[in-house]
Amino acid sequence: MASPARNPEIRKDAVTSRWVIFSPARARRPSDFKAKTSTNSNQNQECPFCVGHEHECAPEIFRVPPDSTSDWTIRVIENLYPALSRDLEPTLLQNPNPESDCGDLVLSGFGFHDVVIESPFHPVHLYDLSAEGVGDVILAYKKRIEQLALHQSIKYIQVFKNHGASAGASMSHSHSQIMAVPIIPPMVSTRLNSMKEYFEQTGKCSLCEIRSKDLLIDESTHFISIVPFAATFPFEIWIIPRDHSSHFHEIDSEKALDLGGLLKLMLRKISLQLNNPPFNFMIHTSPLQLSNSQLSYTHWYLQIIPQLTTVAGFEIGTGCYINPVLPEDAAKVLREVKVPM
Amino acid sequence: MASPARNPEIRKDAVTSRWVIFSPARARRPSDFKAKTSTNSNQNQECPFCVGHEHECAPEIFRVPPDSTSDWTIRVIENLYPALSRDLEPTLLQNPNPESDCGDLVLSGFGFHDVVIESPFHPVHLYDLSAEGVGDVILAYKKRIEQLALHQSIKYIQVFKNHGASAGASMSHSHSQIMAVPIIPPMVSTRLNSMKEYFEQTGKCSLCEIRSKDLLIDESTHFISIVPFAATFPFEIWIIPRDHSSHFHEIDSEKALDLGGLLKLMLRKISLQLNNPPFNFMIHTSPLQLSNSQLSYTHWYLQIIPQLTTVAGFEIGTGCYINPVLPEDAAKVLREVKVPM
Repeated sequence: MASPARNPEIRKDAVTSRWVIFSPARARRPSDFKAKTSTNSNQNQECPFCVGHEHECAPEIFRVPPDSTSDWTIRVIENLYPALSRDLEPTLLQNPNPESDCGDLVLSGFGFHDVVIESPFHPVHLYDLSAEGVGDVILAYKKRIEQLALHQSIKYIQVFKNHGASAGASMSHSHSQIMAVPIIPPMVSTRLNSMKEYFEQTGKCSLCEIRSKDLLIDESTHFISIVPFAATFPFEIWIIPRDHSSHFHEIDSEKALDLGGLLKLMLRKISLQLNNPPFNFMIHTSPLQLSNSQLSYTHWYLQIIPQLTTVAGFEIGTGCYINPVLPEDAAKVLREVKVPM
Repeated sequence: MASPARNPEIRKDAVTSRWVIFSPARARRPSDFKAKTSTNSNQNQECPFCVGHEHECAPEIFRVPPDSTSDWTIRVIENLYPALSRDLEPTLLQNPNPESDCGDLVLSGFGFHDVVIESPFHPVHLYDLSAEGVGDVILAYKKRIEQLALHQSIKYIQVFKNHGASAGASMSHSHSQIMAVPIIPPMVSTRLNSMKEYFEQTGKCSLCEIRSKDLLIDESTHFISIVPFAATFPFEIWIIPRDHSSHFHEIDSEKALDLGGLLKLMLRKISLQLNNPPFNFMIHTSPLQLSNSQLSYTHWYLQIIPQLTTVAGFEIGTGCYINPVLPEDAAKVLREVKVPM
């Protein structure tokens, strides 16, 4: 192996403008890399996320309730195999290929990569918790984001959940992840530009304007859930706050409880309707530092993607997606799913 | 099902600026959509791509050699389940949600979606063909692109190959696909902007400048193969023409044969080194209509992606990728793979 203790790096090339995080510490030796074969996810008896196995995990950041012992309900811990390192200086590195000065960029791999264990018990999934329980997980995201936002070099914080091995979950115990990065990711920049353009044309926030009945699935006091007009994936769902809000971490306890109920309902609906599919959800918030004008047109939302189709050459090559289900059809199906209480 | 005979549409929303192709004709009924389960790919005896089963396919566009009967080596046919329809008018449709004028766009789903059957025989993969055979497949792409480019409404043509079910191949018989679309896809625009910016700063084409020895895998008379500096995926490979060329379909017979040899070598190397992984390749060419200045900084290349990792919530949410293998390590491994002749 060429560089066994190599630090992570963040690179961007002058052709595709994509940022890529290189985390060699997560890798097997490059020469050992083989095609993945289907393996069973780890079993209960050896799961470090289960209550009683806390000592097998990377350091804890906080737990809920704060003073609990073995009666904790949520733990926020460091990722044992972080893609980024909290111990590096956030600096621009020299181009390692000085013979070809071709506009490539390298940053040190500074950043944070944390894990939120959503329950002490292995068989309990996020959607098995009560609305209050899901709301507490949402408040744990908020608390950790407020801590991470104190770091001046952190530009963006991504909360996401991978459920099921084929959606990228390496642990079957219910958990989500928080990554804090020293760049504004490309998709976030694109979203900001797009929302800015709409605001300049109309004077309005594009997400405040979404009110199509055809696309509505459900609504709660403070949120609506829809299938987006140009859903990238079949049965993709967006949960959008009714009130204009740029940053997810502005959420208060009342709204977190309300969101907990609607998120649980959406996850139960896709589980019932789509045969318990693997899924991802992502909280799309705004970069931490925003101008006053950016605050007027940025609006956070939560995106849920059931993994039902395969992303292939056309999508990878073009960034265009092929979705076999029209959003209004998907919304109708999801609207009508009956969830036993 | 809400719209059994609904035409495909291409949509873009005002939030993410992503173009999505909706092709309801490809779908099962939305209410029947379930999580995918692993299914075996179709077997030889029922494969419509095999010689002798030509009548089970959608219409043929041309074959190689042109006057062959059952001794054809390559067939270019229409896709039986096209994501886009060649029979629609290329028009901007009305916003179907007039109550919410929120900057969403809908185009009719006009376009072409063709299939290139690379061999008459089921067990023969592209990399099993001779360099001349792979070169002939490349010349078939060129010929079909030249036909499609005659349509004024076609803005971009994407050639891609999905190999293996988890890379998106629904047929196991070796084939590739050509999609001609009436928009410039977002990733192509981003690439053009990025290459333009480099050209404005340096007066040079960013792909002509790539000459790093650390990243080089192999080279031929007219092409080099490298692991790109910010490879998005482990063991990603780019094959780049040495001479500046904006459009893939400018390739001539001599260069197609040369590319055939290098492409075969790269596919054999990943098959040997990475345990015959599923893979995708994409030919990244330029939009059909280019200005003279755009011709100076655009340069086509072929990208090969072995499917070894899972794209999950972080990547979907941010457009940033996590790659556990440093490009210079991957290049060294691939450089040293011994391929039996």
